Amino acid sequence: MDNIVYVGNKGVMNYVLAVITQFNSENAQEVIVKARGKAISRAVDVEEMVTKRFMPEVKIKEINLGTDHIQGEDGKSINVSTIEIILFK
Amino acid sequence: MDNIVYVGNKGVMNYVLAVITQFNSENAQEVIVKARGKAISRAVDVEEMVTKRFMPEVKIKEINLGTDHIQGEDGKSINVSTIEIILFK
Repeated sequence: MDNIVYVGNKGVMNYVLAVITQFNSENAQEVIVKARGKAISRAVDVEEMVTKRFMPEVKIKEINLGTDHIQGEDGKSINVSTIEIILFK
Repeated sequence: MDNIVYVGNKGVMNYVLAVITQFNSENAQEVIVKARGKAISRAVDVEEMVTKRFMPEVKIKEINLGTDHIQGEDGKSINVSTIEIILFK
């Protein structure tokens, strides 16, 4: 089962808590933090707070950057950057 | 010599052109794209446009995430997330 936390527009702590919960309550070995567009900066904030402050035993396994092609309402395709930060303990 | 492009608040294409110039005119083998805070998302946009559209021969060598501790005007320390994307050809 994949343990994915999608980072959106809420406050950073919501996502930090979601990651901590996945690691602790669900005993996940890996949690994937995903975001796209402007939320990418927040995904990095989440990773930094988890690994530097709350769970120093958690490390980054892999970081993947990419592009999603989204179909706009007018039928035009919009490119949005994505990030995937794979954390493990 | 380090070839660093600092991504800030200007339009994405400014930084894309800066990276392309470093690779072509200055014949750099490596260019480092750096950003912090909200500009992190734009740094990923720059990387994606360079590697997917303009210079497909350029690849990601390494991605480093971190935290800068900035001294605020009131003397308080503020934490800001950082990204460093090392590109090579």
